Amino acid sequence: MSQPSWFEIPAESDFSLANLPFGVISHAGLAQPHPAVAIGNHALDLSIFADAGGFSKLSEIQPHLNVFKQETLNGFAALGRPFHRKVREYLRSLFLEGTPYPDLLRDNQKLRRDSLIPLAKVSNRLPIQIGDYTDFYAGKNHAYNVGVLFRGPANALQPNYTNLPVAYHGRASSVVISGTPIRRPWGQILDADKNPTYQPCKRLDIELELGVLMCKSNIMGSPVPIARAEDHIFGYVLMNDWSARDIQAWEYVPLGPFNSKNFGTTISAWVVLADALEPFRTEGIKNDTQLQSYLQPLTSRDAFDINLEVDIRENQNVSTVTKTNAKNLLWSFPQMVAHHTVAGCPLNVGDLFGSGTISGTEPGSQGSLLEVTEGGKTPVKLSSGAERVFLADGDEITIRGWSEKDGTRVGFGSCTGQILEAWKTGYEQ
Amino acid sequence: MSQPSWFEIPAESDFSLANLPFGVISHAGLAQPHPAVAIGNHALDLSIFADAGGFSKLSEIQPHLNVFKQETLNGFAALGRPFHRKVREYLRSLFLEGTPYPDLLRDNQKLRRDSLIPLAKVSNRLPIQIGDYTDFYAGKNHAYNVGVLFRGPANALQPNYTNLPVAYHGRASSVVISGTPIRRPWGQILDADKNPTYQPCKRLDIELELGVLMCKSNIMGSPVPIARAEDHIFGYVLMNDWSARDIQAWEYVPLGPFNSKNFGTTISAWVVLADALEPFRTEGIKNDTQLQSYLQPLTSRDAFDINLEVDIRENQNVSTVTKTNAKNLLWSFPQMVAHHTVAGCPLNVGDLFGSGTISGTEPGSQGSLLEVTEGGKTPVKLSSGAERVFLADGDEITIRGWSEKDGTRVGFGSCTGQILEAWKTGYEQ
Repeated sequence: MSQPSWFEIPAESDFSLANLPFGVISHAGLAQPHPAVAIGNHALDLSIFADAGGFSKLSEIQPHLNVFKQETLNGFAALGRPFHRKVREYLRSLFLEGTPYPDLLRDNQKLRRDSLIPLAKVSNRLPIQIGDYTDFYAGKNHAYNVGVLFRGPANALQPNYTNLPVAYHGRASSVVISGTPIRRPWGQILDADKNPTYQPCKRLDIELELGVLMCKSNIMGSPVPIARAEDHIFGYVLMNDWSARDIQAWEYVPLGPFNSKNFGTTISAWVVLADALEPFRTEGIKNDTQLQSYLQPLTSRDAFDINLEVDIRENQNVSTVTKTNAKNLLWSFPQMVAHHTVAGCPLNVGDLFGSGTISGTEPGSQGSLLEVTEGGKTPVKLSSGAERVFLADGDEITIRGWSEKDGTRVGFGSCTGQILEAWKTGYEQ
Repeated sequence: MSQPSWFEIPAESDFSLANLPFGVISHAGLAQPHPAVAIGNHALDLSIFADAGGFSKLSEIQPHLNVFKQETLNGFAALGRPFHRKVREYLRSLFLEGTPYPDLLRDNQKLRRDSLIPLAKVSNRLPIQIGDYTDFYAGKNHAYNVGVLFRGPANALQPNYTNLPVAYHGRASSVVISGTPIRRPWGQILDADKNPTYQPCKRLDIELELGVLMCKSNIMGSPVPIARAEDHIFGYVLMNDWSARDIQAWEYVPLGPFNSKNFGTTISAWVVLADALEPFRTEGIKNDTQLQSYLQPLTSRDAFDINLEVDIRENQNVSTVTKTNAKNLLWSFPQMVAHHTVAGCPLNVGDLFGSGTISGTEPGSQGSLLEVTEGGKTPVKLSSGAERVFLADGDEITIRGWSEKDGTRVGFGSCTGQILEAWKTGYEQ
């Protein structure tokens, strides 16, 4: 995959020629945001590129060039996976050393200058308008670790856990793009005597997840068979499902988490298309349960080998508190699509699924501070010497993720958010 | 309020001059749906009405007439409650016997013919584009009844229940308009030996709720104080939150209901604006718990006296299985707005809240068949002599709701849905 390009793409870049992730950018002089692909340290502005005839050698896209005029990727996503594949392959061909169309971009200094914007001069927008957001719970090690904390090892996993991909509906309106600050929430929290109080969250946590975006809808009442589930998957992002553990503990019975989750969920800016992850297929966590027919996988290689890391930055000190891998999931994304629709629920283009928190089994591989600190009992040491049980005001959390194989790297960039102190009175002053 | 009109409005109509609910309609010859108000047996097409200068005597609306060109009420809702009040008051004045502007409509035969369409010739669309949908659980009698079935009377209500309005995020994509058929869902269901099976739902149920639609957003991280919560409330609809009890029982731990709810939620077509319900304020269920400051009500009269009934029609036989009242709620809608945003969650125009299932305390007043039949043990007798424990294929459920006082009636019309048989194989044939 790692073919030579006439364009400078640093070897360590997440945005290699094998990746070409899609996003939405704004930069100086733009009246409205434009779809783009990231390549090396640059973004290719697809609106400017299309206007200059950049797609003139790809006849199939001609009737659909308006998708590059939209402020989200919904229109492009809705074209479907065969289109994504053609567009991505075409763009890659233009960047090859021996591109078949040198005049289009390689030898066109003006278009290179106009359409290839340094990432440092670009700001990213939410790449897609999210319809509904669903958070799954497929990180078995996380579910087990948290279950042990709440119910002890014997009952850590509920009986349904290995039979169906447990999930709950999340809040779409508070999904934000990497870089958006997160205000420490207020809420109802039990005091030491188990009386409810109204105060700022004291157990503010992260959840390391992989997000998946949908590119195809189904009609209400018509489930998606697992054999067709891949057609619905547009691509993947990193995700931090911020969690207020003290609010969660009091509110969550009997209908699940609510305010402990809906104050913010951060996703990374660039959508790694489903095809770009194909070379990194691997096996997920083995499920020994005999599955119902609608959940039976087509392949055991339905997880992805993606390295994941979580950093905490406090002042200038950065500490990596988690190193794990996205293969630590019991359920695959096609299984999630099949399960989500089995009763007839309609999916729409732009819907977001979270994988659930991804944790490994070894120390240092857990995707939430709740696990890292064993329920808040064992502080984690940062590089500055400071300690954390949960997040402090000013802490900046960055999730990074990348796959690597045979010298080819496909990465997600970063998913970042900084904690702002709680309002003094509970309300904006 | 019941003032004489030059227009024929049947005395028993839900859509009196004191109501004027808003919806979105299509009728013969329209290329796209139009906003409308219902009055008696007619709909006033607000797009046609606006084009003919119908709003010419309401200067404030002139810069905003485009909201009547949209295919949803989102634009009109976003104008805010003072605007809704002015428009509703203005339209009412045009229908009064002694209207100050007789030339506009009363004496304008052409505009009357063009803009006042018989409801029988109109089909309704979903009135608003729903962003997020949240289902509360404020029907204390329902929560208690269901709690008794699951956990016994001693632990029927969870400790948090009277301290905060329990809620969960629902699925916006499957909220449909009255009249949409509902396909019996398949899903995972435990058999008699507690083994999971994959089969059509056998315990298909209704949930009688009041829905509330939002007309004002808040910024993420900025909670809405309860004193300003009413500004966010656009209006109310009837709601049936269809529920698959057997799927729910197996899937719902630990994160709440999912596929047991997301296959369909039906709302009534006409939005009764918040101001139209003002005369029917009453006290809800008293809450003796000392509430946190952010939930303390401004008034004890924060519920609405709305008669609610549920009919089952099987073939030509209609049986009323439930008679209750919307005042059977422990939490008010302003308390729901305050709680939903207390941690910073952003609300958007068009968001939908469900009240939770509304049940009274007497026999025949329960808002779900689960309660009516005591957990499926005591069948309910229909007028035909047939019995039901849960819903049968072909059953058509209709919820009706209306307030009445001093000879004035403000009603919701109906909220209807018919059960279609499950697909034979789980998938559309």
